[in-house]
Amino acid sequence: MLYTETILTSQRDQIHDITRTVNAHVRTSGVVNGIAVVYCPHTTAGIAINENADPDVKKDVLMRLNEVYPWQHPKDRHNEGNTAAHLKAITVGSSQTIIIQDGNLLLGMWQGIYFCEFDGPRTRNYHIKLIANT
Amino acid sequence: MLYTETILTSQRDQIHDITRTVNAHVRTSGVVNGIAVVYCPHTTAGIAINENADPDVKKDVLMRLNEVYPWQHPKDRHNEGNTAAHLKAITVGSSQTIIIQDGNLLLGMWQGIYFCEFDGPRTRNYHIKLIANT
Amino acid sequence: MLYTETILTSQRDQIHDITRTVNAHVRTSGVVNGIAVVYCPHTTAGIAINENADPDVKKDVLMRLNEVYPWQHPKDRHNEGNTAAHLKAITVGSSQTIIIQDGNLLLGMWQGIYFCEFDGPRTRNYHIKLIANT
Repeated sequence: MLYTETILTSQRDQIHDITRTVNAHVRTSGVVNGIAVVYCPHTTAGIAINENADPDVKKDVLMRLNEVYPWQHPKDRHNEGNTAAHLKAITVGSSQTIIIQDGNLLLGMWQGIYFCEFDGPRTRNYHIKLIANT
Repeated sequence: MLYTETILTSQRDQIHDITRTVNAHVRTSGVVNGIAVVYCPHTTAGIAINENADPDVKKDVLMRLNEVYPWQHPKDRHNEGNTAAHLKAITVGSSQTIIIQDGNLLLGMWQGIYFCEFDGPRTRNYHIKLIANT
Repeated sequence: MLYTETILTSQRDQIHDITRTVNAHVRTSGVVNGIAVVYCPHTTAGIAINENADPDVKKDVLMRLNEVYPWQHPKDRHNEGNTAAHLKAITVGSSQTIIIQDGNLLLGMWQGIYFCEFDGPRTRNYHIKLIANT
């Protein structure tokens, strides 16, 4: 089963919680055991799994990534000017694979699934592919 | 098939080899061909695949990650003080997918699977999900 | 189905497009829906998904990664001298999972699949594992 979702991001750098949406598709799919692949089809955004409790973690993560991959760099050649967003996307990853057990995502207690925007605001999509097995 | 393992880490930053444990589950599972998803349900730890030969690689990797994401940062807001561990976990990744061929993990000659602790010492879990196919 | 490809890299740091090869295997496999796991069995190389349009993105990505993980570092202990390549490989990832839909890779319009060499030139392999599902 394949599901595609659309979101509208509102900032250049943004970590958007999609855990509920992904889990809702798992539950309605009828998949009891298997895996879910959450996939970002954009090259300046990605999918991450991280803390769902303190919202300051998101702010710190974006601040630190911005420091490691600054938006402006004197040696960048790419004329769209968003090289940093490509590096952040590669670092975070284009997809995450989560185990499905007993009809639910087998996330850790403090884990959430996040769409990571690094060159917004934009209209973005992501795919959820479910693979059932026994 | 799903297996869960528990490990006790002993340092703040630690790269712990779990290759034998993962491969043992693959062998006893009877899965001949497919994939293994090794998943970390914690937000300050991750799973990596890297060199299994020279132990200095692990030391260098932890030293370099600590330099890129220093433990203390004047702009961090997260009051647990472990923002760096979240960034290292995101960089390394929450899971790794390895191909299973002829009943064994299809790792490269120098590859091992590692549980990466970035905020230890703690008791940690990881999951091994096997998907069989032909 | 499992396919193994060999490539010859020509530079120390190189981002090599393998999208067509991966998609050709998907098409000839007869897999209509499922996932493709593209896996690098080396510890100083990896697989990334990123922009397929402006070749300057590749140059910028390699330049930026080299800045974050410089080739020479006074504290490195690993006597092969390629610690930076291990860190780049871990950052990029050993594998990528791509959704297969209607017999094709479900990549975004600007996405390509890349073999990332960080310690070349060398002869390298990568595996493509296809998992079919409905």
